[in-house]
Amino acid sequence: MSTTVGQFCLNVTDLERSIRFYEDLIGVPVRRRVTGDGFEEVILAAGEGGGRLQLAHHHDQTGPIEHGNALWKIYFDVDDVDDVHRRVVAAGYEAEGPPQRLEQWPVTIAFVFDPDGYRIELLQRHEA
Amino acid sequence: MSTTVGQFCLNVTDLERSIRFYEDLIGVPVRRRVTGDGFEEVILAAGEGGGRLQLAHHHDQTGPIEHGNALWKIYFDVDDVDDVHRRVVAAGYEAEGPPQRLEQWPVTIAFVFDPDGYRIELLQRHEA
Repeated sequence: MSTTVGQFCLNVTDLERSIRFYEDLIGVPVRRRVTGDGFEEVILAAGEGGGRLQLAHHHDQTGPIEHGNALWKIYFDVDDVDDVHRRVVAAGYEAEGPPQRLEQWPVTIAFVFDPDGYRIELLQRHEA
Repeated sequence: MSTTVGQFCLNVTDLERSIRFYEDLIGVPVRRRVTGDGFEEVILAAGEGGGRLQLAHHHDQTGPIEHGNALWKIYFDVDDVDDVHRRVVAAGYEAEGPPQRLEQWPVTIAFVFDPDGYRIELLQRHEA
């Protein structure tokens, strides 16, 4: 049995707005777009390494995303967390405080929210 | 700007039950376990390739997971979708019908639900 973890598919309310957020601010480009029966979706991934994120918009989705308590957060590994955090905040999106260097691991993290309120942990690794 | 997609972190109600589901039935092993302040979490990934899945249990989480309409599905690439589907169903978990070969792509897919009701798309690729 050989299994690998594929993409996670999140519902979004405005696909083009989400694409701009993830491409222009977070820095992960769209690799593929699929128009399905009643929905449109894209897959985003780095050119090399990391996982894949799929975003889907169902045409019958009209209200805001109801988050419940299912997804805690999505991580993105970035090379300059201060820069990405600044871009996201400058574009008018919410953040949970400034980036913070952790004591227990050689990383700096920051929390921001995407256009639908998905919680994102930006993570920059430092030399140990 | 160089960004990669990291893991997705899902809240679960019973961490050990979820670990058994993903390790024994889906086929992705735990790579790391972290005990935090008020929560415990694990990261699962294949030995090579694919993304990472993080599962977290918060000690103050008592009721079932409220899914809302945020996460549509999580994909797993498997080498034998019939076998994985059979294992999941035999273990008493829910499935949406039998595996089906798609017409538009050279894949067979099946939908199953994890112990908390997360919707999983199992996907086996065939030679084109």
